[in-house]
Amino acid sequence: MKATVLVRPKPGILDPQGEAVQASLRRLGFPVAGARVGRIVELELESDDEATARGQVERMCAELLANPLIETVEIQLPGAGGGGA
Amino acid sequence: MKATVLVRPKPGILDPQGEAVQASLRRLGFPVAGARVGRIVELELESDDEATARGQVERMCAELLANPLIETVEIQLPGAGGGGA
Repeated sequence: MKATVLVRPKPGILDPQGEAVQASLRRLGFPVAGARVGRIVELELESDDEATARGQVERMCAELLANPLIETVEIQLPGAGGGGA
Repeated sequence: MKATVLVRPKPGILDPQGEAVQASLRRLGFPVAGARVGRIVELELESDDEATARGQVERMCAELLANPLIETVEIQLPGAGGGGA
């Protein structure tokens, strides 16, 4: 089963990469009022059970994929309508 | 208007970050058959017209946000059902 994890900087948390992107876009002439940069991680899991897969991905996020102090995580599984955390 | 840009490594293109994530997850005991890592860029645009916004974001991708040789880009605008490129 495929799983997609969207990792975003939390609102209010400094995002230097986003600020650099915004500054560069404005320098190129694009009227951008804000930019935030996060990561997308696409995983190929061996489990085909959605509940098992979601539990595994939540543990992966906690142990490796995201920093809960400064990032939010959204886990998307096929057939489900996404899900924040 | 908010716009979201998902930038992913093209299939077949080497993704060292994804390989490192996969190796680390397997070392932690997670049965992951593959991992690919991309970027998510969330933009706050001044335009409220969807066609204008999409055109701007396509040009931003070409000029700064993605490398079309090795990355695919998906532009998501509110109200639209996403859109590949």
